[in-house]
Amino acid sequence: MSERTPAHDGMPRPLHPEGWAPPVGHAHGMAAAGRLVFVAGQVGWDPATATFTSDDVTTQTAQALRNVVAVLRAADAGPEHLVRLTWFFVDRDEYLRARPAIGAAYREIIGRHYPAMAVAMVSALVEERARVEIEATAVVPG
Amino acid sequence: MSERTPAHDGMPRPLHPEGWAPPVGHAHGMAAAGRLVFVAGQVGWDPATATFTSDDVTTQTAQALRNVVAVLRAADAGPEHLVRLTWFFVDRDEYLRARPAIGAAYREIIGRHYPAMAVAMVSALVEERARVEIEATAVVPG
Amino acid sequence: MSERTPAHDGMPRPLHPEGWAPPVGHAHGMAAAGRLVFVAGQVGWDPATATFTSDDVTTQTAQALRNVVAVLRAADAGPEHLVRLTWFFVDRDEYLRARPAIGAAYREIIGRHYPAMAVAMVSALVEERARVEIEATAVVPG
Repeated sequence: MSERTPAHDGMPRPLHPEGWAPPVGHAHGMAAAGRLVFVAGQVGWDPATATFTSDDVTTQTAQALRNVVAVLRAADAGPEHLVRLTWFFVDRDEYLRARPAIGAAYREIIGRHYPAMAVAMVSALVEERARVEIEATAVVPG
Repeated sequence: MSERTPAHDGMPRPLHPEGWAPPVGHAHGMAAAGRLVFVAGQVGWDPATATFTSDDVTTQTAQALRNVVAVLRAADAGPEHLVRLTWFFVDRDEYLRARPAIGAAYREIIGRHYPAMAVAMVSALVEERARVEIEATAVVPG
Repeated sequence: MSERTPAHDGMPRPLHPEGWAPPVGHAHGMAAAGRLVFVAGQVGWDPATATFTSDDVTTQTAQALRNVVAVLRAADAGPEHLVRLTWFFVDRDEYLRARPAIGAAYREIIGRHYPAMAVAMVSALVEERARVEIEATAVVPG
């Protein structure tokens, strides 16, 4: 099937330029059409109380991803509609050490759906205890 | 009314997962459909001359928000169509001190419309005097 | 022609608020409608091997832009459909020195199409040798 358009079922569709190395844990790009869901930057806190219960980057990332999924659900969308994740971490070494564990948490919470991603280390986030903030975008067909 | 789809009038619609703490000055997410407006990262300078007249973060933020509104207007859109703001500040302490004043400026310029937001502190912006850069996205129904 | 809507041919359309200084190398905003292409953050490596061959910021930026174009092509899109570029550089002085050369590379690879842009300096990127990461979004009419 051509990558020109969203998949036959209208779902967001990964893009893979010919000859490129397989992406690890993300897509090189996504094509999609439909209504849009913009998820605010999620941090790894308990969304009911807006308080952190852990300073561990993996624990926080898992919680931030759960929070992303909860916002998607409020729009009647799911992780399979994600087209982009932009990750802001505050410590590169900490992130690299946690990467395998973060990957495992990702697969548990989001599944095997990998949208387009960008990752940058920033000097700080608003919440002092936040180790990561994840901004997400989804497209729901129809 | 269900949060599944954009509001009855097609306007961007805030998303609020059940049981979550009320967001302060932003939405947890936005659902929207329509034509898109992508606003370039706005800094707090005078857009006619591309020069700064203040080094104060609140003054700059107010001007950057006015600049966002001006670009929206050029697309026949308004603040009520905003679905996402991504804020890059250069100094976290400065931002936290200015937060109440920034909130007041926001309500004056944008109104009570709060889209999805993410905030990150970055090491620098292109313009030496810039204390903040705001990237904005809007969706106009129809 | 009014800037209210995408251009007559449906292509993404630059927005220019009245009285604003002409933007240098970017648009103040873009209006667009159609299917969306989300390009993952591109770094300046060889995408076939995922390895860097240069530590020069201009060389890396040119390669990152070529990578953006390759992902667009996999969606049957081109540089003319770009609506937003977000650039993350790791060193402001390095970026400012390279700016003229980066501009020349941009015009060679992307052409005279300038979407909405934001630029931030971040503390680090995931890949140790990466000097820049570029996140891109495109809208294809129809």
